[in-house]
Amino acid sequence: MLENKNPQRTSISQLGEFGLIDHLTKNFEIRQDSTLKGIGDDAAVLDFKDKKAIVTTDLLIEGIHFDLAFMPLKHLGYKAVVVNLSDICAMNAKPTQITVSIAISNRFPLEAVEELYAGIALAANQYNVDVIGGDTTSSQTGLLISVTALGQADESEIVYRNGARPNELLVVSGDLGSAYMGLQVLEREKQVFLVNPQSQPDLDNYTYLIERQLKPEARTDIRTLLHALEIKPTSMIDISDGLSSEILHLCKQSNVGCNLFEEKLPIDPQLINTCEEFNIDATTVAINGGEDYELLFTIGLGDFDKIKANPNFTVIGHITEEKEGAHLITRADTKIPLKARGWNALESE
Amino acid sequence: MLENKNPQRTSISQLGEFGLIDHLTKNFEIRQDSTLKGIGDDAAVLDFKDKKAIVTTDLLIEGIHFDLAFMPLKHLGYKAVVVNLSDICAMNAKPTQITVSIAISNRFPLEAVEELYAGIALAANQYNVDVIGGDTTSSQTGLLISVTALGQADESEIVYRNGARPNELLVVSGDLGSAYMGLQVLEREKQVFLVNPQSQPDLDNYTYLIERQLKPEARTDIRTLLHALEIKPTSMIDISDGLSSEILHLCKQSNVGCNLFEEKLPIDPQLINTCEEFNIDATTVAINGGEDYELLFTIGLGDFDKIKANPNFTVIGHITEEKEGAHLITRADTKIPLKARGWNALESE
Repeated sequence: MLENKNPQRTSISQLGEFGLIDHLTKNFEIRQDSTLKGIGDDAAVLDFKDKKAIVTTDLLIEGIHFDLAFMPLKHLGYKAVVVNLSDICAMNAKPTQITVSIAISNRFPLEAVEELYAGIALAANQYNVDVIGGDTTSSQTGLLISVTALGQADESEIVYRNGARPNELLVVSGDLGSAYMGLQVLEREKQVFLVNPQSQPDLDNYTYLIERQLKPEARTDIRTLLHALEIKPTSMIDISDGLSSEILHLCKQSNVGCNLFEEKLPIDPQLINTCEEFNIDATTVAINGGEDYELLFTIGLGDFDKIKANPNFTVIGHITEEKEGAHLITRADTKIPLKARGWNALESE
Repeated sequence: MLENKNPQRTSISQLGEFGLIDHLTKNFEIRQDSTLKGIGDDAAVLDFKDKKAIVTTDLLIEGIHFDLAFMPLKHLGYKAVVVNLSDICAMNAKPTQITVSIAISNRFPLEAVEELYAGIALAANQYNVDVIGGDTTSSQTGLLISVTALGQADESEIVYRNGARPNELLVVSGDLGSAYMGLQVLEREKQVFLVNPQSQPDLDNYTYLIERQLKPEARTDIRTLLHALEIKPTSMIDISDGLSSEILHLCKQSNVGCNLFEEKLPIDPQLINTCEEFNIDATTVAINGGEDYELLFTIGLGDFDKIKANPNFTVIGHITEEKEGAHLITRADTKIPLKARGWNALESE
């Protein structure tokens, strides 16, 4: 499903490692005041002055985290950045810099790596972060991307996973499950394509789901929104592995329980239609599907009025005492223990 | 050459991703004042106060950067940390934190990953740095380690690659080429072992070379030494790809040339003996062999007296005008242009 089946192919070995790095990084600009020195020395130098530095890292591996049969390289580069920025957002911090390391087998020509970097550059531009370093090497088999993101925040702004308290509200940004169903749609199309390479997929009914899978966004806007509403969450985490799994992380680290209400889950109409078509329960998808990169957080009851009419946020439950456990309250009013069934890269083997 | 041919094998999938991370990281202590929050949230939080933050990253890939036939996993973990700390040292900064991401195929049992982490923990302890995060995932084939290191320094202390000026002295710490010859010895033993698995290698004559290859150290001591001598280098780089390649980086970024003197190269007697045995020119090895992780730097002529009797440092040449180019002056007094023949992971395919 690449747009051009016969792209130009330039061997990477012609450039050599340093030639490749120069070629790929020469157009990266410095946008952040805190970046004193970016690419080009043994290390980058950053100046956070009176702010705290926030650091996170993620590894994306071909065949485990992505399938190049339906993930265009530019989207992959973009997504590799976004998943890391999302972790910075989950600390209520502002992303400022990234490092990007890639390992590529020689089946990839230079043009493929350029596509990947075009996606990285697009994300850096979109989110106003500087690419300050990285490593570029060969691999014996697939493609691999390791991104480390840095951010900054005042100490008083930072939100950890361990601050949730009983009676607080459980809130989520955006909607849930769409990225997972986007992946199901793409995997179905891949199977169709393998059987009949001439088939033309009609994906009009799934555009939102596919975009959520192929071009997820980090919710850098939530920090600004919450600041404007004068809300500081008591705990926060991003939803990468699935809502259920993330709720359990928050509860475990905060030593609390929770009740999550099925009827409150924010689900896009396209997800509901597609779940019907696939004969999958939309609630299961919303709870266990990963990769939405929305933010899950808790707020005090006193902040409810500030967000109740805000379309960016949905109150999906409340925090309880630890001994009560973490449960889903279904539409039929039955209480089911939450389990971490989220997407787990280690179980995918 | 693993010490135990029948080690205990526990499947990693039994633990799951979060179980594995907990298991591997539970004993990592926080040692640095600047680490406000380490492992266990979406990101780590660091406080560098009035210091600048220094960031670098490196990727090590099985079959490209290491061969598990002779690289014990514990040594590999140690080395993966050291190569990154070396980059921080090359900025004249103090390493303070690392993130460690690994991808492992299911041919590795839990005990293997524990060995790898034991090496990481040993290095963290040895160099007093905190492990503040990472990612653990599966790979379809080999083992892969991505480390990002952070450090700190006063702005006035930081040394870049671009500050060398004509007439300054070119100085190197330690000795050169031993790590490369250690690798040659190990590769020869591997071939012998493949032909005759019962052969018992006698490596007594190569202990220093092998240690330099399997357990390199980052020269964190150089910053302290130079500070005590009241020397601030004008430019600095670490020797990972080979002296020749690194000199060319310094010259290019500083817009200068240089003369490197063959007779001044610091070479260990064991290297000389082994080069004779292998019928390889020791100068070639000292200039082009990589992975020594020594520091190469330039100082003003006025600082010569401070280091001339110091066993940690060797003056190996001097900086010239850019138009004069970068040359090796041989013992026979001939002038040969320096070329970047260093170890290049992209050419090793």
